[in-house]
Amino acid sequence: MPRKDTKIKIKEVALKLFNRDGFVNVRLQHISDVCGLSLGNIGYHFRTKNDILYALFSDFVEEQKLLLSEFRVLPLFEDFNRFLNSNFELQKRYVFFYKDALDLTRLYENISKQYREHLTWQELQLQGMLVFNEARGALDSKGNQDFVQKMSSLLVWASESWISRQAVTGAEELDKSSYLEMVWFLLKPYFTDTGIEEFENRVIIHEL
Amino acid sequence: MPRKDTKIKIKEVALKLFNRDGFVNVRLQHISDVCGLSLGNIGYHFRTKNDILYALFSDFVEEQKLLLSEFRVLPLFEDFNRFLNSNFELQKRYVFFYKDALDLTRLYENISKQYREHLTWQELQLQGMLVFNEARGALDSKGNQDFVQKMSSLLVWASESWISRQAVTGAEELDKSSYLEMVWFLLKPYFTDTGIEEFENRVIIHEL
Repeated sequence: MPRKDTKIKIKEVALKLFNRDGFVNVRLQHISDVCGLSLGNIGYHFRTKNDILYALFSDFVEEQKLLLSEFRVLPLFEDFNRFLNSNFELQKRYVFFYKDALDLTRLYENISKQYREHLTWQELQLQGMLVFNEARGALDSKGNQDFVQKMSSLLVWASESWISRQAVTGAEELDKSSYLEMVWFLLKPYFTDTGIEEFENRVIIHEL
Repeated sequence: MPRKDTKIKIKEVALKLFNRDGFVNVRLQHISDVCGLSLGNIGYHFRTKNDILYALFSDFVEEQKLLLSEFRVLPLFEDFNRFLNSNFELQKRYVFFYKDALDLTRLYENISKQYREHLTWQELQLQGMLVFNEARGALDSKGNQDFVQKMSSLLVWASESWISRQAVTGAEELDKSSYLEMVWFLLKPYFTDTGIEEFENRVIIHEL
């Protein structure tokens, strides 16, 4: 197998095991068993389990950045909803990180730093979305000076903490419609008539 | 020392250590050292460290229930704000639980169960508050059928996850005003004129 493919395979197997068993419960030995690679071979690509974690975390951040960049040019409601859909799939793909986010950011200083920067970056993207939608008359903050800053922070938090909320409240499955409904519920009171119409006609929460 | 006082002292010392060092990092031996009691004496009151955790968790739930019962008879905005103030102090007092909530509910089935019931109970109390405030004309859900259910769930989650949010985003101190602002920000778009006036005149967010 070419070197690059081996690296990708190790990451994929590790991600699967982390998601299933939780990061702390997986040992390099498990990863090596499932990959069918020797520990030495794995060590050639990743010195420690933490190095795999860092690589996965970087992939995750890059993927989420890509999603946000795609939607930021003209973020109509339907674009925001499409972003939320993809973001939901991404969270599910890296579910171990969301279940263990607090632990991982507490244990690993560089993950913590990178995650904070990433949260701030997300807030900035969403601020652009809010300003744009107020300017085009789909949202109305009714003169609330803090609206853009507070709403962006709330949207990011609500979205990022959704999986751990599901875990604490004991929801069995990660249901996309509930996630979308929750995020839109935060924005709805600020819809103008244009916003309401656009939301009702263009935003699909419950797929048929 | 009378038996009851010893028990209280053990809980107090354990709480201090859990808050400072995190639950998993504290051993019964530490607690016994700080209490100046033998391990045997502590074992007489609490067989394991988990038993202390359960006792503390029950205390915490009882205290929060008391706070909620006090405010539920006529929950005007100022009463809700008073509840939030006390709830903030309570979260700070049991900060280890909020920092480790996900871990603890994952590790201990009975805590998980009790915590979920407690979240549901809180939502029910807040639903009463929302219905009352809509009925007296301080809130207007504008015909949104899900308002009471969704808003109560959101308020409880925003409030309960506030400390872990601070931890992840790296906020240095637990600032009460930010907590109060965040909770009220969720309700504000539903204020009627009466609600706005009452909020501006009767609700204190930034203490002088």
